Amino acid sequence: MGLSPTEADFPPHWCPLESAVHPRVRQVEERAEAWIGDSGMCASEEERAWAVASRGTEFFARFAPDAADDERLLAGSLWVYFGFAFDDARCDAGPLSSRPAQFTALAGRIQRAFEAPGADMADERFAAPLQDIARRFRALGTPSQVRRFAHAQRAWLSGVSWQIGNQAVGRMPGLDEYLAMRLLASGGEPTFALLELATGQEVPEAEMQRPAVRALTELAVMVAALDNDRHSLHKEFSRDVADQNVYTVLTQHGALSLPEAVREATRLRDRMLLRFLRLYDRVRPRASAALGTYLQGLRYGMRGNIEWALRVPRYLGPDSGGEGGSPPRWAESPADSSPHAPEGLPSVAWWWDAALA
Amino acid sequence: MGLSPTEADFPPHWCPLESAVHPRVRQVEERAEAWIGDSGMCASEEERAWAVASRGTEFFARFAPDAADDERLLAGSLWVYFGFAFDDARCDAGPLSSRPAQFTALAGRIQRAFEAPGADMADERFAAPLQDIARRFRALGTPSQVRRFAHAQRAWLSGVSWQIGNQAVGRMPGLDEYLAMRLLASGGEPTFALLELATGQEVPEAEMQRPAVRALTELAVMVAALDNDRHSLHKEFSRDVADQNVYTVLTQHGALSLPEAVREATRLRDRMLLRFLRLYDRVRPRASAALGTYLQGLRYGMRGNIEWALRVPRYLGPDSGGEGGSPPRWAESPADSSPHAPEGLPSVAWWWDAALA
Repeated sequence: MGLSPTEADFPPHWCPLESAVHPRVRQVEERAEAWIGDSGMCASEEERAWAVASRGTEFFARFAPDAADDERLLAGSLWVYFGFAFDDARCDAGPLSSRPAQFTALAGRIQRAFEAPGADMADERFAAPLQDIARRFRALGTPSQVRRFAHAQRAWLSGVSWQIGNQAVGRMPGLDEYLAMRLLASGGEPTFALLELATGQEVPEAEMQRPAVRALTELAVMVAALDNDRHSLHKEFSRDVADQNVYTVLTQHGALSLPEAVREATRLRDRMLLRFLRLYDRVRPRASAALGTYLQGLRYGMRGNIEWALRVPRYLGPDSGGEGGSPPRWAESPADSSPHAPEGLPSVAWWWDAALA
Repeated sequence: MGLSPTEADFPPHWCPLESAVHPRVRQVEERAEAWIGDSGMCASEEERAWAVASRGTEFFARFAPDAADDERLLAGSLWVYFGFAFDDARCDAGPLSSRPAQFTALAGRIQRAFEAPGADMADERFAAPLQDIARRFRALGTPSQVRRFAHAQRAWLSGVSWQIGNQAVGRMPGLDEYLAMRLLASGGEPTFALLELATGQEVPEAEMQRPAVRALTELAVMVAALDNDRHSLHKEFSRDVADQNVYTVLTQHGALSLPEAVREATRLRDRMLLRFLRLYDRVRPRASAALGTYLQGLRYGMRGNIEWALRVPRYLGPDSGGEGGSPPRWAESPADSSPHAPEGLPSVAWWWDAALA
């Protein structure tokens, strides 16, 4: 494995989950691309093209193949485009990516812009597009669904602040801390919080907050986040950014070679997916219809995230022309089939608690 | 008015709200003080004494005079003591108060310690006490109540990160941004989220997330936060910290003298309380019993916060011996009775939307 690993350096994905995509994906994508152009979110034609190339509608159409209608699929897609573009311009790169004080103020203000319809942030081009998205959410969703999304979005921004802070001071977290941070910074929480807005089905609060359902959500977030670490490794190596990802954490703190880190990260990720599947099988039979729909969305999301990533210019690099990439290769069995919590990860060990169900 | 203003430099408080204190305050305070000593939270006898002197039980017994039993009053009180002590050691002062990267990582880790029962943070003396409090919450409350509290606590920590970031780069926010930040950093959200855990009454999710109920909560948080700005002004001047508070914001950005800033802040705060009262009168008649209890808690909290602050060594200064202070003086009418949103504050203007109710 060279310094710039490609998909061929990784084992096939183990992902025994349903693949689906919303039938209206192309029609909605067209509307989303028009919105991107009109939104004012992009500072240049290059940025606009790169935002379009994130294929947010395809991404979200795989998470929510059962979105109730075009408006809902569109609203969720727009947030995904927003999230990727904001991440590129304000988090992963750009002048704020190593300035935690400035980023945290921006995060606080933009979160308030989401929550407060009249908030005025004329100096920040991402604010008005986010407020437009928030208006759509409020029109389509219940106050409870919108509020759940808002909490999830704050969690994401707090994780990005954490990551930027670490980067600013050259601090590479250990694996346990990395997982706690990545759980937030990956953006998985808000992405999965879009599911209810897409299907229109509201999970009763008492059911949504059951520890087993929280564990399933966090497991799905983390599986997708570790898959994204894998898919973005090529991109990050090629940009020469000393990023925090599961491989740099394992090579630095675990004193592993990169191929060893790949194997270790794959085992960890597969154990998490295995735990998800077993816990899902225990929770699903007693779930309400709305919870059943939500949990199915977690499954679609984990699978769709891989299928999207292997085709998207975001991860293949801007020179790919947006086509090709490796077709997904699928593993028959997990790289590690232990049903127990991995050692030394107390921040996530509770996902394996026998009492959950 | 000198450079170190005292309560006598302010007009009386306008606060036509009910005053009450839980009858078991002294018994529970004794248990809380024993817990503080045993918790490991304090690094020295001086810190322990200062934590005790925050009178967290009296504070919370005024917010929740209707707490269902001693255990619930105790659990809420312990979080209040924790919050004050953490604020003093890790936020307002101490080595992290101007190091946003380090603080944000700490905030992320300690929030995870709250959420994940097994999380291990042996290097941080505030973590184990918070985990003990979290265990109490989980034993006393529903998953939904605990989750609401967790969201509120994350919001608080994100606000503190914002404040510390501003401080680190010498950035004094304008009034609109200050209010958005203070809404989080004041800690009012988690404090009011303790109400449900104290009374045991769970507000139905759909009702809790109604915009009018959110507005009432935020108004109560902000009234209490502005009152705290007033009460802590003496303390902050005496420590010579160039803090962000409503007075420094108004004197720097509004080019007001300190007496003018005091008048302006009083008018602003009174308009918020007036709006709270009018909106309360519209929401209360159709509220469920649990929501009625919660909204009454917001009223108790705003009033109790003042009565506590005027007697507590935290604000009177450590030399006060913890006794005395000015007895509360009460104004008959608001300093500004305008029923409209103040000009130029778009982040909070929606609190005055006519459509709320």
